[in-house]
Amino acid sequence: MKKTDYQLIIVGGGPAGLTAGMYASRGRLDTVLIEKGATGGQVLLTDWVDNYPGFYDGITGFELMDKMTAHVDRFGLEKKFANVTAMDLQGEQKKILLESGEELTTQTVIISTGAKPSKLGIPGEEELLGKGVSYCATCDGPFYRDQEIAVVGGGNTAIQEALHLTKFAAKVTVIHRRDALRATAILQEKAFAEEKIEFIWDAQVSEIVGDEASVTALNIQHNDGATSTLPVTGIFVLIGVVPNNEMLPLDQLEIDEGGFVVTDQEMCTKLPGVYAAGDIRSKKFLQIINAAGEGATAELSAEHYLSNLAG
Amino acid sequence: MKKTDYQLIIVGGGPAGLTAGMYASRGRLDTVLIEKGATGGQVLLTDWVDNYPGFYDGITGFELMDKMTAHVDRFGLEKKFANVTAMDLQGEQKKILLESGEELTTQTVIISTGAKPSKLGIPGEEELLGKGVSYCATCDGPFYRDQEIAVVGGGNTAIQEALHLTKFAAKVTVIHRRDALRATAILQEKAFAEEKIEFIWDAQVSEIVGDEASVTALNIQHNDGATSTLPVTGIFVLIGVVPNNEMLPLDQLEIDEGGFVVTDQEMCTKLPGVYAAGDIRSKKFLQIINAAGEGATAELSAEHYLSNLAG
Repeated sequence: MKKTDYQLIIVGGGPAGLTAGMYASRGRLDTVLIEKGATGGQVLLTDWVDNYPGFYDGITGFELMDKMTAHVDRFGLEKKFANVTAMDLQGEQKKILLESGEELTTQTVIISTGAKPSKLGIPGEEELLGKGVSYCATCDGPFYRDQEIAVVGGGNTAIQEALHLTKFAAKVTVIHRRDALRATAILQEKAFAEEKIEFIWDAQVSEIVGDEASVTALNIQHNDGATSTLPVTGIFVLIGVVPNNEMLPLDQLEIDEGGFVVTDQEMCTKLPGVYAAGDIRSKKFLQIINAAGEGATAELSAEHYLSNLAG
Repeated sequence: MKKTDYQLIIVGGGPAGLTAGMYASRGRLDTVLIEKGATGGQVLLTDWVDNYPGFYDGITGFELMDKMTAHVDRFGLEKKFANVTAMDLQGEQKKILLESGEELTTQTVIISTGAKPSKLGIPGEEELLGKGVSYCATCDGPFYRDQEIAVVGGGNTAIQEALHLTKFAAKVTVIHRRDALRATAILQEKAFAEEKIEFIWDAQVSEIVGDEASVTALNIQHNDGATSTLPVTGIFVLIGVVPNNEMLPLDQLEIDEGGFVVTDQEMCTKLPGVYAAGDIRSKKFLQIINAAGEGATAELSAEHYLSNLAG
């Protein structure tokens, strides 16, 4: 008979979920980690991770997630590659429904579904997706060799990835709605020193223009009222994230204005036995290292809850 | 002229302080990290770290801290090896007093002073320190080759280190005041399978007995009222930690019952511009990975505070 009942189900296999899974395996909880794609989450979209403590020369996002996955595999964590479509997290027995129709039950749940890139919500964005509109420089950068492209955004991700894109593109124009970047100083310095990077400040893209094959230009609305057109063959939209919360029972949880799950400092949601960790959690700073730390804390909270049930 | 004014002073160079320092260097804050001994904190006392995500084969505590130190060095963090004796954290300019008499000033402070091993507080403990009484298996284990020794405690650290001590000692007796261990399941399994480890349950050491040269025995008080004597040449006390808070202005901060610093989820203390991260922080679960995550969050909070001052 197929196993469907667990002590702990972890939904989402980014740094938070993987760390929770590693702790759960070491803690010998009967656990499954459910991931819809590949383990690693958004870090897989990151070219280079320079600030995960211990990997002092930096490491690719892919390689770091490969190592974290090897870490859970070493301790024998059960992984299931499936889409979660619904959850009932109330009561002592929680239910997790998969797209296949299969229903799993569990005593505790760690929600680590993460977040995904925000969209601009402008004309041309949907229509030209994959034809020059991208949300992942690591994935799509190599397609733009010797071409002129644009990056929208001013935070760490936008600037990090703009720098990465200069390896391929002839010119990278960073379009930012303010007059200063939010990115950390070291990234700003590098970007300002990079000859291939130009900036358009105080401006927003109002439309992505293209033909059937590809993006051809961006219409730009400047904050002072002027408009302009920038000819490019690609646009990378890197303006932050929205939560992966479609499968969550939002009426059962406390959710913040942005749609993220509210927890206390021990990662407990308002439902007993239910925890959240990583980018899905309501918090100010989204970093790989704190996602991992939260995964550990969430698992220890789940262990504590289970031992009280058993006692 | 010697530099004495900073944007950020980090007090304590364990995983939390090192991560904060790495982020601060990347963020180009004018920062100094003050450490009284060697960077690495309590992790230096840990023989083997099996659960720091990414180092999937495990890594020695020393090597992990060496890598974290190399990480901050790569970004050029200023480090100062000195004892902090007092702090004034109120007002916009914070003051940090060193044992040398030197006074440093700063706009923000991250408190990451960590914790240290708890003591038993019984006769013989002070007198026989270094003559068989130890709080660090990694440091002192090799002195007990082929000898019979004891470990006091039942948590992760006690059991991890009892296992480590079997590499040297002929016999390791674990004395625990309860009838079950708190350590995570995988460690319990290993300990129960290890022939060199024996257990005395429901008992506490009431006195450490020795001569001028060395510990010779432990007097044990059993919970059922019985007493016994265990001949050993060494005792490792691994019963938790107490905060390193002697240098903190306890009247200015919010401090919990155990003496740890209370913060919100962004690591902010009740004083503007003052943050705490790692084992000194009031929290339930002390792990390397969440100390590191808290260090990153504390630094980002400090950056945010400073940018608002500047704006």
